[in-house]
Amino acid sequence: MPRPYVLINVAATVDGKIDTRDRRGARISSEADFERVDRLRASVDGIVVGGRTLHQEDPRLTVRSETLCAERVARGQPAQPARIAVASHLTLPPDARFLNGPAARVIVFVPRSRGNTTLETVEVYECGADRVDLAQALAHLSNLGMRRVMVEGGGTLNFELLRLGLVDEVQMYLAPLVFGGASAPTLADGEGLGREAAIRLSAPEVQTLPDGGLVLRYMVNQS
Amino acid sequence: MPRPYVLINVAATVDGKIDTRDRRGARISSEADFERVDRLRASVDGIVVGGRTLHQEDPRLTVRSETLCAERVARGQPAQPARIAVASHLTLPPDARFLNGPAARVIVFVPRSRGNTTLETVEVYECGADRVDLAQALAHLSNLGMRRVMVEGGGTLNFELLRLGLVDEVQMYLAPLVFGGASAPTLADGEGLGREAAIRLSAPEVQTLPDGGLVLRYMVNQS
Repeated sequence: MPRPYVLINVAATVDGKIDTRDRRGARISSEADFERVDRLRASVDGIVVGGRTLHQEDPRLTVRSETLCAERVARGQPAQPARIAVASHLTLPPDARFLNGPAARVIVFVPRSRGNTTLETVEVYECGADRVDLAQALAHLSNLGMRRVMVEGGGTLNFELLRLGLVDEVQMYLAPLVFGGASAPTLADGEGLGREAAIRLSAPEVQTLPDGGLVLRYMVNQS
Repeated sequence: MPRPYVLINVAATVDGKIDTRDRRGARISSEADFERVDRLRASVDGIVVGGRTLHQEDPRLTVRSETLCAERVARGQPAQPARIAVASHLTLPPDARFLNGPAARVIVFVPRSRGNTTLETVEVYECGADRVDLAQALAHLSNLGMRRVMVEGGGTLNFELLRLGLVDEVQMYLAPLVFGGASAPTLADGEGLGREAAIRLSAPEVQTLPDGGLVLRYMVNQS
């Protein structure tokens, strides 16, 4: 199936955590890294999150820089990338940022078993039986004209996309922090793979930031 | 309390895992990284592991290079560093590598509540009431003349040592792999810390290896 170029972006601690055990969207990235992430968001047609991230963190998923938004418009793109969620259910408060952020296409994929979800200003697509079929969802985004999307978590969605071979690139800000916590989320959670099935990445591009963070860019070796 | 210099050494995947969900000691480090780890082992007075790592992985904890062993002897050290375990209980099979590896001092710390554990050829110290008091155990190693020890996991021991401010340095081989798995172990597991209590590390020294791995060396900022 056709699909957009998919890149995962994540900020993680040295012990691999993308949030604390409390899962409230703890700040991990730094001021120095903010510009990279904003440029990355400005480079994509849509930003995708999973259901848990959507409901628990209410992420912004928007480009902050007005200059970058203006450049998008000059390129013939909407000022903001689409905000896209993959969720088993939708129970957003009416004032959720996902629904009320800057004008943008807002798209939600839910499984068919959830019946008709209707939300004004949101495009809802039923896709997959009991859980969202991710390959089909990406094919749908491709049909909508999206050529490049960015995934901003969480760990379960990241893992499923990686497991299914649907990821091209992983960018990570590695913060000089340790959170600990056996139950804290990581870049790739879910069921996990055995050693032989482990996903192989390329040698990384490495950038060191003055705050002690590293920006690592890996390509996924599709087999 | 006096204690030796403590460094944690770990091989992790890009998603922060130090083993797969199966916890059988999956190989993560590479041939290219083997020499660094062997030199590191040869540089310490003792190598420490936690109970779960000891019982599930039966790690070697030995210097492999005969040259490095000979250099230790020339410096007036034993050929092999001490093999040290911190465990809530001891149920090792008689043929465990921990007990039967190359001649070395073998030391075990257990809590007092475990009563008298007796094992020939092993020094057993009772230390702490219901769980091993790690500061006391390190003070004991200091009294035994140890000035530098290396911790080789697992995630629970690493976390407790970091939480208690008993770690000076973290070295990590970051492999270009993703294992996934919400239940797979990470560099620091345990209960975890909230955002404000997160442990801060220094800016890292970064070495890139030809296999796509990175060797990262962080100092722990003791507050």
